[in-house]
Amino acid sequence: MTTTDSTHHDDPFGLLKTIDSPHDLRRLPREQLKPLAAQLRSFLLQSVAKTGGHLSSNLGTVELTVALHYVFDTPHDRLVWDVGHQTYPHKILTGRRERMATLRQLGGLSGFPVRSESEYDTFGTAHSSTSISAALGMAQAAALKGEDRWSVAVIGDGAMTAGMAFEALNNAGVAEQGKLLVVLNDNDMSISPPVGALNRYLAQLMSGQFYAAAKNVGKSVLKPVPPLFELAKRFEQQAKGMVVPATLFEKFGFNYIGPIDGHDLDSLIPTLENLRHLEGPQFLHVVTRKGQGYELAEADPIAYHGPSRFDPAVGIVKPSTPPKRTFTQVFGQWLCDMADADERLVGITPAMREGSGMVEFHQRFPKRYYDVGIAEQHAVTFAAGLATEGLKPVVAIYSTFLQRAYDQLIHDVALQNLPVVFALDRAGLVGADGATHAGAYDIAYVRCVPNMAMACPADERECRQLLSTAYAQDRPVCVRYPRGAGVGVAPLESLDPLPYGKGEIRRQRATEANGPRIAILAFGTLLYPALEAAEALDATVVNMRWAKPLDEALLERVAQSHDWLVTVEEGAIMGGAGSAVLEALQRLRCIRPVLQLGLPDVFIAHGDPAKLLALQGLDAPGIEASIRAFVGQGQ
Amino acid sequence: MTTTDSTHHDDPFGLLKTIDSPHDLRRLPREQLKPLAAQLRSFLLQSVAKTGGHLSSNLGTVELTVALHYVFDTPHDRLVWDVGHQTYPHKILTGRRERMATLRQLGGLSGFPVRSESEYDTFGTAHSSTSISAALGMAQAAALKGEDRWSVAVIGDGAMTAGMAFEALNNAGVAEQGKLLVVLNDNDMSISPPVGALNRYLAQLMSGQFYAAAKNVGKSVLKPVPPLFELAKRFEQQAKGMVVPATLFEKFGFNYIGPIDGHDLDSLIPTLENLRHLEGPQFLHVVTRKGQGYELAEADPIAYHGPSRFDPAVGIVKPSTPPKRTFTQVFGQWLCDMADADERLVGITPAMREGSGMVEFHQRFPKRYYDVGIAEQHAVTFAAGLATEGLKPVVAIYSTFLQRAYDQLIHDVALQNLPVVFALDRAGLVGADGATHAGAYDIAYVRCVPNMAMACPADERECRQLLSTAYAQDRPVCVRYPRGAGVGVAPLESLDPLPYGKGEIRRQRATEANGPRIAILAFGTLLYPALEAAEALDATVVNMRWAKPLDEALLERVAQSHDWLVTVEEGAIMGGAGSAVLEALQRLRCIRPVLQLGLPDVFIAHGDPAKLLALQGLDAPGIEASIRAFVGQGQ
Repeated sequence: MTTTDSTHHDDPFGLLKTIDSPHDLRRLPREQLKPLAAQLRSFLLQSVAKTGGHLSSNLGTVELTVALHYVFDTPHDRLVWDVGHQTYPHKILTGRRERMATLRQLGGLSGFPVRSESEYDTFGTAHSSTSISAALGMAQAAALKGEDRWSVAVIGDGAMTAGMAFEALNNAGVAEQGKLLVVLNDNDMSISPPVGALNRYLAQLMSGQFYAAAKNVGKSVLKPVPPLFELAKRFEQQAKGMVVPATLFEKFGFNYIGPIDGHDLDSLIPTLENLRHLEGPQFLHVVTRKGQGYELAEADPIAYHGPSRFDPAVGIVKPSTPPKRTFTQVFGQWLCDMADADERLVGITPAMREGSGMVEFHQRFPKRYYDVGIAEQHAVTFAAGLATEGLKPVVAIYSTFLQRAYDQLIHDVALQNLPVVFALDRAGLVGADGATHAGAYDIAYVRCVPNMAMACPADERECRQLLSTAYAQDRPVCVRYPRGAGVGVAPLESLDPLPYGKGEIRRQRATEANGPRIAILAFGTLLYPALEAAEALDATVVNMRWAKPLDEALLERVAQSHDWLVTVEEGAIMGGAGSAVLEALQRLRCIRPVLQLGLPDVFIAHGDPAKLLALQGLDAPGIEASIRAFVGQGQ
Repeated sequence: MTTTDSTHHDDPFGLLKTIDSPHDLRRLPREQLKPLAAQLRSFLLQSVAKTGGHLSSNLGTVELTVALHYVFDTPHDRLVWDVGHQTYPHKILTGRRERMATLRQLGGLSGFPVRSESEYDTFGTAHSSTSISAALGMAQAAALKGEDRWSVAVIGDGAMTAGMAFEALNNAGVAEQGKLLVVLNDNDMSISPPVGALNRYLAQLMSGQFYAAAKNVGKSVLKPVPPLFELAKRFEQQAKGMVVPATLFEKFGFNYIGPIDGHDLDSLIPTLENLRHLEGPQFLHVVTRKGQGYELAEADPIAYHGPSRFDPAVGIVKPSTPPKRTFTQVFGQWLCDMADADERLVGITPAMREGSGMVEFHQRFPKRYYDVGIAEQHAVTFAAGLATEGLKPVVAIYSTFLQRAYDQLIHDVALQNLPVVFALDRAGLVGADGATHAGAYDIAYVRCVPNMAMACPADERECRQLLSTAYAQDRPVCVRYPRGAGVGVAPLESLDPLPYGKGEIRRQRATEANGPRIAILAFGTLLYPALEAAEALDATVVNMRWAKPLDEALLERVAQSHDWLVTVEEGAIMGGAGSAVLEALQRLRCIRPVLQLGLPDVFIAHGDPAKLLALQGLDAPGIEASIRAFVGQGQ
């Protein structure tokens, strides 16, 4: 025990509190790092238990974070964290310890790295598999500018399955003169169970002699090859007349090192220190465990992937009153019921089995369930291939992730008019995950594509009905629904469709009234605050249901009997459903003043979803106030 | 010589003319296939010389096409051609020989496979790297339905570098029970010179003993491994304690066979016949040469990639009068000039050096030029990485291919507000390449993204000016310009920007006139037909220049002094620049009847670009007629 240790032994976070930046960390003697890591893990657990947030992934990166900041000269050296939900230890060590209590709350710290939040957050991440491309760009910039620095990407094995990571690996040769390090944080678990060939391959590497040899070696890790193997390799090269490198990653021009134990600082630090003296693209394979050091999370890392508040001594407790049914659950139930009714149905998820509500479907229909990995592009074209053979694919995908398969949606599905159902979860604002995950653009970017249709259910019942409606069409249809629960209208058991492309009037203004003749056209769940607002305004409310095709007959009827129209949607105003209304009114030659309510042309940060909507004026009082201003009745 | 041969010896295409479908082909004795392939190649050359179209790639697939249709029971077995510009031999052998004279012309054959054109075109392709996903879907559908058929993807080495192909390979394990064959057509040349690790790896495979051993072997090709190597491999496995398969593709769960000579029917056919008796995912590596059999194309496959009409005896002749300068050339010149003026500029292309006009930039600034391969996602995030370090990346990309990097544009560039310039070539209709390549949606899908800007130059001079304007901004900006030449306004030498987000009035209607007060708001090159139409109508014409930010001050001024507004753009009407005008007019409370002219909500097939625009009413007479109808002056 050193003096520093004893100085802090009364405060469980005494040592941690001396670290206000990585500079402080780098001044510690190496033997202090283990106690520091222990305090960091403990602080992290207490912190997330209070705020909610990602837990398992962060428990898994404690030692790796300490080691990276200890060895590399951050922020001069650049650290890019793929996905970024494992950066809480990084945030704690880079001057944001005290602000961890504000995590993912309005005005508080983001759950992901954000450039504006810290100079240590060199690249904003949240969507998967961007880190190698970004770090390669940084490494290349350093080379061009003659700056001596490392650019480090830390990427999980799940993220490595996305094509984008492969594209970046394939291009890494441009960094031959630069200093690029890719750290593969191999925890054998993305959010859903791992799938695909790459994961099998990594498991092979881990089970091999490599791991046994390198695990506890530290200093000799740069030469993990036993002489016997070296011989065999030379022999093989001669026989084949070509160089066959030892691992897949070396085929991409990287120097592969590993696997090493990512929780062992005595392996991590000497390895990273040795690495710093090498040139060209380096690839370090680190094995970690999600949930490391917290028994409950180790046992069930999926449950502890992103928990709400909990008591660390007790763990996650199921609430005594069952929570309201979410749209995700409504979709999951519909998927099973429709699969029962129609054997042509197949379900596809890009690595989001839990988030998309497909656990039961997977269990009940394993042969018709496809988790294709974090591979949105492939997911959509794979669905198109299935559809050409008469099957009925349902692609369950978050609105924000469909952005990654936009060309496939246009080129492979829409152009061929194939009957694929896109179940777009997390449409609109998503709350704690913030701007990166907002499903704000789907109406605009889908609507402009020929053959596509877009349904916007207002509640749970309608969600099921519109999924059935989408499924019944011989064309591609998106059904968008928000994160969480709706107003709580219980779905019917029936799988009957609603009329395609048709809306309904939900509230009719009193015809004898004197006030301004206002009609609110609602697309999706904001129908309910719109109905509330309409009471005070005595406005007509239309549940439009479809952003495309637009119910033009209904629109015309309503426009002709009202003087003021208001569109409401939880999506970007620019190009959204309200714009579809404007376009249609011009075509119909029935021009009216129209107020477009929806998401403004800015990125909206994280926070409580209800508060965020209220801040955008999309709760009932906000809608009412906007409409009063619009029709000239003051605020 | 057989009798069949002599029967047809008077007609150079006598044998070919007996083949009206693959069924006819499969009835031929095997010794007839070589003469057939020779006639097919000769017919192909004559045909493309008359119509223009893709040549090099098709000359390279003659034998492979013959072999695939000979061995597989098409269309019962499914054949998916990646990119699809190599399918002319396939079209000729599948009943479309006589229609080859209509290739890529209005109402004629498409230059790509199209499902509606033939039952042998099982999947429409044109964008790269979709084939494995589609074929995997088909194979999986066959397995689910209990149908016994092969699904075959033919993919080039260039297309193999895209992440999407990797995603599909990674997922191919799902086809363990199915019959999936991936044929890698390795011609070591996508449109630009090959780049990246995968190409280096393939070159290694080709230079190895494998190739020498397998090249002329045919029947024994399924066991190409010499005993010496087999021994070494076993030795190595023992030493490492794990299985290290021989090739990268085997790491993905494929059985790898090859490389074999793709122009040698005596290798191809026995290999494919043997393959048909195997189970699980198969990977056949075939080596071909672009331009094979036509000396001029072999010598310069890039020049003969997609020639216009030419005399096969003479080859491509440079026109005596130099052709009009294209927008692509204007961009290429600007890029070099700006790179001279600002050393922070770096240029990025996803494998489109020639098409994007970057050959000179590559030659003059090799260190600041990045061809990242067919990897649009990586290209954009790589650019973001470079931008975070203070460099000024210019991503040159076709409008239709930016669809493949949509999430990266939102999540990595726009959200972080990084100064990346997107030079969007081929915006609008593209002519012979048809619906798959139309740059119709960019205004809609970019406009809805916060922080993004979108400039629409009307002519060559303005293209250069708006590129400079985009480059001067500290934010991401797209500049969209169409394929080919504009009206021919010579660019100025200056690199001075225009005012950001500002339009200009190009024609003012006579104030004393009696007719309807019409203002045309033009976005992009359709300004010129709009100006023509305006003469007859005495309309005001505004060159809006920016779809985002919209010049609202100018719009308001014009709207207040006119009764009828018309928006004109070469892009999708839904959500496009015209919709931005509608939104703004509502915000400005200056509501007018607006006619939106642009591309309708359908996919528009191939044909002469001018004719296609005229058919959409987007030439001067069409614009005039639409406006007359709009203002009630009849047609």
